[in-house]
Amino acid sequence: MNTRDDSTSSVGQVRKQDFTFGEDGNELTLDCGRTLAPVTLAYETCGTLNADRSNAILVCHALTGDSHVAGYYSPDDPKPGWWDRMVGPGKPIDTDKYFVICSNVIGGCMGSTGPGSNNPLTAKPYATNFPVVTIADMVRCQRRLIDHLGIDTLLAVTGGSVGGMQVLDWSVRYPNRVRSAIPLATTTKHSAQAIAFNEVARQAIMADPKWNGGDYYESGRPEHGLAVARMVGHITYLSDESMRHKFDRRLQDRCELSFDFEADFQVESYLRYQGNKFVERFDANSFLYLTKAADYFNLENRHGNGSLVAAFSRATCRYLVVSFTSDWLYPTYQSRTMVKAMKKNGLNVSFCEIEAPWGHDAFLLPNERLSTLIRGFLDRVGNDVIGGDHAL
Amino acid sequence: MNTRDDSTSSVGQVRKQDFTFGEDGNELTLDCGRTLAPVTLAYETCGTLNADRSNAILVCHALTGDSHVAGYYSPDDPKPGWWDRMVGPGKPIDTDKYFVICSNVIGGCMGSTGPGSNNPLTAKPYATNFPVVTIADMVRCQRRLIDHLGIDTLLAVTGGSVGGMQVLDWSVRYPNRVRSAIPLATTTKHSAQAIAFNEVARQAIMADPKWNGGDYYESGRPEHGLAVARMVGHITYLSDESMRHKFDRRLQDRCELSFDFEADFQVESYLRYQGNKFVERFDANSFLYLTKAADYFNLENRHGNGSLVAAFSRATCRYLVVSFTSDWLYPTYQSRTMVKAMKKNGLNVSFCEIEAPWGHDAFLLPNERLSTLIRGFLDRVGNDVIGGDHAL
Repeated sequence: MNTRDDSTSSVGQVRKQDFTFGEDGNELTLDCGRTLAPVTLAYETCGTLNADRSNAILVCHALTGDSHVAGYYSPDDPKPGWWDRMVGPGKPIDTDKYFVICSNVIGGCMGSTGPGSNNPLTAKPYATNFPVVTIADMVRCQRRLIDHLGIDTLLAVTGGSVGGMQVLDWSVRYPNRVRSAIPLATTTKHSAQAIAFNEVARQAIMADPKWNGGDYYESGRPEHGLAVARMVGHITYLSDESMRHKFDRRLQDRCELSFDFEADFQVESYLRYQGNKFVERFDANSFLYLTKAADYFNLENRHGNGSLVAAFSRATCRYLVVSFTSDWLYPTYQSRTMVKAMKKNGLNVSFCEIEAPWGHDAFLLPNERLSTLIRGFLDRVGNDVIGGDHAL
Repeated sequence: MNTRDDSTSSVGQVRKQDFTFGEDGNELTLDCGRTLAPVTLAYETCGTLNADRSNAILVCHALTGDSHVAGYYSPDDPKPGWWDRMVGPGKPIDTDKYFVICSNVIGGCMGSTGPGSNNPLTAKPYATNFPVVTIADMVRCQRRLIDHLGIDTLLAVTGGSVGGMQVLDWSVRYPNRVRSAIPLATTTKHSAQAIAFNEVARQAIMADPKWNGGDYYESGRPEHGLAVARMVGHITYLSDESMRHKFDRRLQDRCELSFDFEADFQVESYLRYQGNKFVERFDANSFLYLTKAADYFNLENRHGNGSLVAAFSRATCRYLVVSFTSDWLYPTYQSRTMVKAMKKNGLNVSFCEIEAPWGHDAFLLPNERLSTLIRGFLDRVGNDVIGGDHAL
């Protein structure tokens, strides 16, 4: 039960679960051609799966997210899951109606198998012997989890950013298993600029001598490199306007410029803080793998032989596509391109560009318009499938 | 003489000169309160100063530029000075008419006094004992050089980016010594986003153990950190559109994704190349000092007690302000703000936003519109001052 002083209802206490597969010979074959076993996925569920298993919604997290999507691990948890404002009883993704699943991606470091996991062949962390995984590999793993949970068809798959890439891949890879898809603030392929930012972040990690070719789990982690990598990424999640609102040129704990190389400005102090906080929770090798997966993602090449229209010809689900005006990492023109390709296939698509100053991060922030759109879309999709009364 | 196979005329062979001051007790007092002596400026001149010394144009270089603005150091030089397309006989800044001066900024590493210079008190490089300098300090040094050359009033001061900041500071600091000013692709103060990118670049350098608190001149330079810093900066000089044109998602020397952490995409390879090339020519401490000077620049605080209109009330010169549509480092709205403040003071201002896809770098690239604007503006200013025949 949520006893915190917040005005919204919560799914309350949740627990981290895990699912392991591949040990029985049913190993995972990856895009790179290698196989992987065993594979563990950390996941969380909120709400109750209904009798005909038709109310399941898969939430895909973004680059460095985790399976903890809503609620609290314990009564004294200081903060809830990363999308708690969207997922919960009475919330847009209403856990009184829907059964929500969120799993940590393969390659990650939040409980799922990744480069920091033990390689059973060596009894040491995989490090860079871990195979380079793709968005498709992440989706393949999620499908195994959905199978394991006995769910044939997902009512919806949703997620923003790199989570949105998984949503798009789901919708064309397993069209029979997805009734609707809600890709938010995402793209069908990284632009050169997006690749460039990721590459600089990777280089920052690999330039840190402590990275040591990825083999640092005993010798000490490349914290400085990872902090710089996070700082680079963080700028791309905000916007010129949001940074002006939030920081402008305000000084940090001082009235005058320092005339040294300490943090003079609040924005410098903020970035340093974000970088340092990140290294406490994230594995540098995972950062390399996940950014690479994002850079490799190319829906039209993967599913359409170079044609985005052909790629979406495989899809059958309804879409709600949302972009944000100030998102310069995956700008609206990229969403428009995907919407056009969907529509050329006669798919049922709702598209909205939401006016928001907060940059790419907007999909994670309070936004009445986004909440209304997702709630309404799920209501319509849900009515068709699980009935107007949403009977469990 | 330029014997190269290019179709444009050149100022031919030029030489790097230097000017040292402050040794006679006439030391430089800096914004930080410290004094510095001796101070050396590396500089270059092209063209001939006319009899009444009225045809001098000062060109201010950008962040990591140098005094080598046009022509060639030797007949076998592979490439000319950084603004050779703009400066030379018959070119927009026509050295048949004008006497062009370009000096390397204080704090730099291309011949002027900076953190890599010997501290006369210790006979070792200053390193981080070098005082934190400002755009104003750079301009004060340039004024000493102009004094030394016997020039009372500059016909024009021009430059792009951080060079444009120097132009703006010149125009309000020494209004009686500047007839016209051409700030290009610049701003009166860094946005939080611009500070953020510089801070990440600085953190990349300082995270490199070889940086060693700035004391690396004997132990070996922080090449990895500096390369990452340059990569960050480089992205901000381009644009989403220009990177798509130049690289898109094309692969580098391969037909398939590598599924490792080598450079798969051309844009990755390009950035790595730019980073590595940069460390050959630039000093990491200078990069820290120059980015800090850019972040500190704030024309309205410095000259207008917080009001940009008040700051420009000191100015008397004509202005040509130019911005570029795809420059997201110093976007057009920032130029519009300065133009508005100039106009509120009744100043004679021409403003043009040039349609160009190449991002912030556009001011350095071939651009007929920019050439025409600068040529025409200088013609008008020159006609008023040095006569219609531009008699030398």
